[in-house]
Amino acid sequence: MSLNLCFLGAGNLATHLSKVLQERGFHISQVYSRSEKSAKDLAQKLDTSYTTFTNQINNDADVYIVALKDAVFDEVLSQIDFRNKLLVHCSGSMPLSALTEYSGNIGVFYPLQTFSKSREVDFKSIPVFIEANSKNNEDFLVELAQKITDSVSIMNSEKRKFLHISAVFACNFVNHFYAIAAELLKSKDIPFDVLKPLILETAQKVMEIPPQEAQTGPAVRFDENIISDHLNEISDFKNYAELYNSISKSIFEHHQNLK
Amino acid sequence: MSLNLCFLGAGNLATHLSKVLQERGFHISQVYSRSEKSAKDLAQKLDTSYTTFTNQINNDADVYIVALKDAVFDEVLSQIDFRNKLLVHCSGSMPLSALTEYSGNIGVFYPLQTFSKSREVDFKSIPVFIEANSKNNEDFLVELAQKITDSVSIMNSEKRKFLHISAVFACNFVNHFYAIAAELLKSKDIPFDVLKPLILETAQKVMEIPPQEAQTGPAVRFDENIISDHLNEISDFKNYAELYNSISKSIFEHHQNLK
Repeated sequence: MSLNLCFLGAGNLATHLSKVLQERGFHISQVYSRSEKSAKDLAQKLDTSYTTFTNQINNDADVYIVALKDAVFDEVLSQIDFRNKLLVHCSGSMPLSALTEYSGNIGVFYPLQTFSKSREVDFKSIPVFIEANSKNNEDFLVELAQKITDSVSIMNSEKRKFLHISAVFACNFVNHFYAIAAELLKSKDIPFDVLKPLILETAQKVMEIPPQEAQTGPAVRFDENIISDHLNEISDFKNYAELYNSISKSIFEHHQNLK
Repeated sequence: MSLNLCFLGAGNLATHLSKVLQERGFHISQVYSRSEKSAKDLAQKLDTSYTTFTNQINNDADVYIVALKDAVFDEVLSQIDFRNKLLVHCSGSMPLSALTEYSGNIGVFYPLQTFSKSREVDFKSIPVFIEANSKNNEDFLVELAQKITDSVSIMNSEKRKFLHISAVFACNFVNHFYAIAAELLKSKDIPFDVLKPLILETAQKVMEIPPQEAQTGPAVRFDENIISDHLNEISDFKNYAELYNSISKSIFEHHQNLK
């Protein structure tokens, strides 16, 4: 299938997804973004055209792929006539029904991964979750996903939202803790590098051991001396001390409940 | 050097450290633990003797390695006559001076890693941080560490404590969030496996990109709709909703400060 795909959005996800779809033989006919820089950068990478005006979005694409921040969905989509073409969003949290008023052919294509423009990713291992408003559209999106990954599942909007929330904990919040660790180390002139083997092993451990069994550290041992000493040490970092305290309590409670 | 090492403690760290030291040619002469099962299990693995009584700890070891929970240090050590032998602890948070009253030759040997008994680790890449009360003892411990790892540094007690706090964020708290994610998924019958590529990539990203630049997700985009929707979805998991809220705020503030 050599189809024309139009990307609405030119952020991290749009950048990676459009690139891999182009590599698999799909034609990216146009990129739209509210940001001229983002639109231009991505269009250049794909050697295609771009626009920052919704009224200049071509109506000859076969599929419109929405990779916008959820908050601007309606503002952007309400300005476009999709002529009943397949309209697909890539959001974990938005339900399929968010697209109902804009086309009769709608779907969701949710790749569960963290994308940064500067970093290459291997799509083959990324799970993609599909939902659509008809068997035809579902089959089409499954086939599309199978061109780029070995892991394709059908999942409804309610479950997908929980999947997204779980990903916020396991990725976004985790990365913030890496950032807090980096900041604490920097305050004592210790390079972040020393933590890298620990960070990798912590992730690799849960590939094999369920995370509740992999838990180590002062909180799960309920080592109150260390906990209060640590809280005292980082009292200048007020936010982080509060997080330290509430997460330690959460770990302790979680493991009390498991006993 | 074929020295006699006595291990005080038979937990996760003692299990892995004694094993690798034995593999490098050191003789583990005895294992002490307050728990008979732990002492016996480890002694069997090492083919050595064990005791659960402090008054049966042999006084012919060359080095005593303390891998006990910090909270019981004094209770255990005060019952033993170390005859001025080298006494070393493996704690991130305890200062070197915690050993002063028990021997005239003291040191710290702190391997920065998360250890679970059921999982093999490759010591070669684990950073070990050394501190001692004399150049001689420091040199000895550096040499000991170099037998098992390529990454040996000298670090004082104050810095080591901050390193430990950072590790609590980057490992223990991170793992707890894997556990929260697993629990949220389980409530919707979604297997934890779907998160594994995301967890690995989140860790691998910060091997190359500083974590503050790697941050993605609703909080750093300040996508309020998603955040309030997520909070509403997990309101039955009261603790987790509170953590979600406070960490999202922390991410937002952290990135406002960077601008």
